[in-house]
Amino acid sequence: MPKSAAGRGRPRLESTDQRIIQAALDLLRQTGPAAVNIDSVAARSGVARTTIYRRYSSRDELMRATMEHLIDKAPVAPDLPVREKLRWVLDRITEILENRLGPGGTAAIIANSDPDFTSALRRRLAVRLSTLSDLVNLDVARARLRADVDADTLLGLLIGAYLAEVLRFGSPRDDWTDRALELLTPAVTPH
Amino acid sequence: MPKSAAGRGRPRLESTDQRIIQAALDLLRQTGPAAVNIDSVAARSGVARTTIYRRYSSRDELMRATMEHLIDKAPVAPDLPVREKLRWVLDRITEILENRLGPGGTAAIIANSDPDFTSALRRRLAVRLSTLSDLVNLDVARARLRADVDADTLLGLLIGAYLAEVLRFGSPRDDWTDRALELLTPAVTPH
Repeated sequence: MPKSAAGRGRPRLESTDQRIIQAALDLLRQTGPAAVNIDSVAARSGVARTTIYRRYSSRDELMRATMEHLIDKAPVAPDLPVREKLRWVLDRITEILENRLGPGGTAAIIANSDPDFTSALRRRLAVRLSTLSDLVNLDVARARLRADVDADTLLGLLIGAYLAEVLRFGSPRDDWTDRALELLTPAVTPH
Repeated sequence: MPKSAAGRGRPRLESTDQRIIQAALDLLRQTGPAAVNIDSVAARSGVARTTIYRRYSSRDELMRATMEHLIDKAPVAPDLPVREKLRWVLDRITEILENRLGPGGTAAIIANSDPDFTSALRRRLAVRLSTLSDLVNLDVARARLRADVDADTLLGLLIGAYLAEVLRFGSPRDDWTDRALELLTPAVTPH
């Protein structure tokens, strides 16, 4: 199946519906919500404007449909030792921020350049993070993580580890996950 | 001395030169580099366009002068116990990201919306962070921090703790520094 450079290994969607949404997702990821409109999506997807308008009567409707595809359901967590479980969580977070929101979506939330987009995205992000938070709490309950580990704080530090790499270096450095886990793992592992 | 809401307690600058730079800094912080041009700075500062053009022949010259004021020299570090020293470092980082770059500048770097701005800012940020990194390494040398603490990774996590709050909540929550330090302090304190 052909793959898009922007999609980072995600398979290309094939139907007209899917091509429209894929184009909107790509624009959102790369540049932000301001870059998504019927014209830009038509140009990028190769689908005629009239065909897009038949499905979405306005840019707002198109944006709403696009956001439905922005953050997937959480995958089932594998059973792993602490350090590898943290790496798995970090990989899920990276996937959301890099492949889903992308630099365009992330920057738009931080600058709050489109308040509707910001609040819709924050809600979706919170739902997704609450699943990861449940996983952390489960490992606390099982005494795999220290009893005083606050899941929300730990997730914040993992999210931040990725964001700080992007702020400082554009693309995260090769060894960034190892370095972050080296410092964080002892802080959350029972003695 | 009158204070600006945007300046968050920084004293207003007073001369014409200072009013121009202050307006450019405010626009950069709030919206990003794309919002800074001679017209917008004239409107915000109340300084006539001709007066601004007498000092800066172009928008690029104005931006260069503005960036000189964007990141201050590092203040001298106080002598404090580990947790309070980390809080002091976190406060310095917050000051840079919140009061200097602001959401507009931070988002512009993440989205790389203006590559010249991004690289100029990253260089300045790196210089400022290297001073903080020296402080961390000094505390490692004095055995106030664990011997295996990597200064760059620790600073990345502190920067990220702030960015993740902004991404998730817009403004950082009241207890965010306490929560981050509660998790990080044991990880870097010698046993």
